[in-house]
Amino acid sequence: MFRSQIKVLDCTVRDGGLMNKWQFSDEFVKTIYNSVSEAGIDYMEIGYISSERAFSREVYGPWRFCAEKDIQRIISDREKVIKLSAMADIGRIDFEDVPLKSDSSIDMIRVACYVHQIDSAISLAHHCLDKGYEVTINLMAVSTVGLREIDEALDDLSKSKVPIIYLVDSFGAFYSEDIDYLSKKYMEKLNGKKIGIHCHNNQQLAFANTISAIINGINYLDGSLYGIGRGAGNCPLELLVSFLKNPKFKLRPLIHAIESQVMPWYKKIYWGYHIPYMITGVLNQHPRTAMAHMESDIRDNILDFHDQIINDIE
Amino acid sequence: MFRSQIKVLDCTVRDGGLMNKWQFSDEFVKTIYNSVSEAGIDYMEIGYISSERAFSREVYGPWRFCAEKDIQRIISDREKVIKLSAMADIGRIDFEDVPLKSDSSIDMIRVACYVHQIDSAISLAHHCLDKGYEVTINLMAVSTVGLREIDEALDDLSKSKVPIIYLVDSFGAFYSEDIDYLSKKYMEKLNGKKIGIHCHNNQQLAFANTISAIINGINYLDGSLYGIGRGAGNCPLELLVSFLKNPKFKLRPLIHAIESQVMPWYKKIYWGYHIPYMITGVLNQHPRTAMAHMESDIRDNILDFHDQIINDIE
Repeated sequence: MFRSQIKVLDCTVRDGGLMNKWQFSDEFVKTIYNSVSEAGIDYMEIGYISSERAFSREVYGPWRFCAEKDIQRIISDREKVIKLSAMADIGRIDFEDVPLKSDSSIDMIRVACYVHQIDSAISLAHHCLDKGYEVTINLMAVSTVGLREIDEALDDLSKSKVPIIYLVDSFGAFYSEDIDYLSKKYMEKLNGKKIGIHCHNNQQLAFANTISAIINGINYLDGSLYGIGRGAGNCPLELLVSFLKNPKFKLRPLIHAIESQVMPWYKKIYWGYHIPYMITGVLNQHPRTAMAHMESDIRDNILDFHDQIINDIE
Repeated sequence: MFRSQIKVLDCTVRDGGLMNKWQFSDEFVKTIYNSVSEAGIDYMEIGYISSERAFSREVYGPWRFCAEKDIQRIISDREKVIKLSAMADIGRIDFEDVPLKSDSSIDMIRVACYVHQIDSAISLAHHCLDKGYEVTINLMAVSTVGLREIDEALDDLSKSKVPIIYLVDSFGAFYSEDIDYLSKKYMEKLNGKKIGIHCHNNQQLAFANTISAIINGINYLDGSLYGIGRGAGNCPLELLVSFLKNPKFKLRPLIHAIESQVMPWYKKIYWGYHIPYMITGVLNQHPRTAMAHMESDIRDNILDFHDQIINDIE
């Protein structure tokens, strides 16, 4: 599907880092940066910008913070042909933690929030706009939010200056019918804004739901290499690029990065389709219980996990 | 989605056996049989019926043949609450290899064919009907067949006595738009017959495409436990059952079978989402090159595989 307005964002480092506290080597991040640049991807989300007060550098790697000196080490002095994005979580960053755009290699800040944080998110997003960035708001976990609340949030967002709003299926709970329904609602309520989609793969639907979003006119698309990301992970970028069939995108550099950098991590951390993630997705729950199970030594005891989760809700 | 006409078929042993020449233990097959029975699945496809002349028993396990004595060992004297299915491949079975229904525990024979074999398939299917079975024709690899040829095949099938026809995405090449288009065509051309869907997961779309088929009115649905099947495998049965939300289906017995029988095989044979299968899916090719690569010691060399396949088509 060729549509010139489509923008693809790689969230390999940002969302993948949720699985290893951003303990990626510089070689990893450099290879991703060079590969997605060469592949013609529009944005690379290199991490979160966070307050140094919110997280310890002894526990979290540099991409929890996205300091300019760390970014410089990655991009060095090659010509920069991709835009860099960083995510900001409400409550984990203060206004003064956001540098001026003129002092930063970051091009876009994506403000992530839950529905009850929408006012804070709009306020932070406006602050980032004022500092010179492209800005989005990513409203998370809408699968758990009632329709009246979604409508209210979309009304608030429509009145804001924020030009790009993301529909986020944080729990991997949506079927394509849900995406159809919500895409139409977002497009209508946020008339004049650009809409994005970020899916999780708990039910092997992240790619399919991204396609549903594209068909409904959504133009900002998130993917990650081999789907790396929290829990079941995201829409695999290599599938998305193959689907889009836009000659500006190249598959080969993505395969190179998957082989050399992502697959070694796949043997160490457990994203992707696993039954515990599938169960939390089907039940529309946060993946934290499934992640704890997959990080334990009893990760193959999937029936125990099933019984415990079903017990908890009954 | 609740619809009383929906029938779910488990093809764990039949399609999974394409990955290990049906070298499943009796314990494996018994556990699958008991679990899918308990889960309320409508059909279990236990293997292929083949001529003893077509395959050697020294190479292939019993489910390449589905002899009645082998089936008896699995079902023993428990009450049989699930229908058994077996697949027959054109060219690998003669009429006399099909027992009378009264001498067999098999309830349904699914005749698999490519488009050029449609006459032979109808002939064999009619023979199986005459011998007392439920019968389907599964027209494979339609992603490689021109529209005129599909129309002709559907015309022939519409005139046959075969009551159930399957749309099969053998190469995992279809997007939901393709399934929408072909589902409508099958429903229209085969008015009065029942339509089934069998998907492969090369692009992580087997489940999503099965949902698309359901939405278009298709009622016979194939799945396998943890998606086990040739190459990237099939629609995961546990996802399908969770989606259908029909109280007659139970998830827990499926999780039990996955943990105790399927996951141990997952560590030994390579079905599921892997880049070589993804590449053949995107290119609408038979997965044989990808399967050979995944069975080799260089399965992690995915960039070499990519370059070789691209070289071959350029």
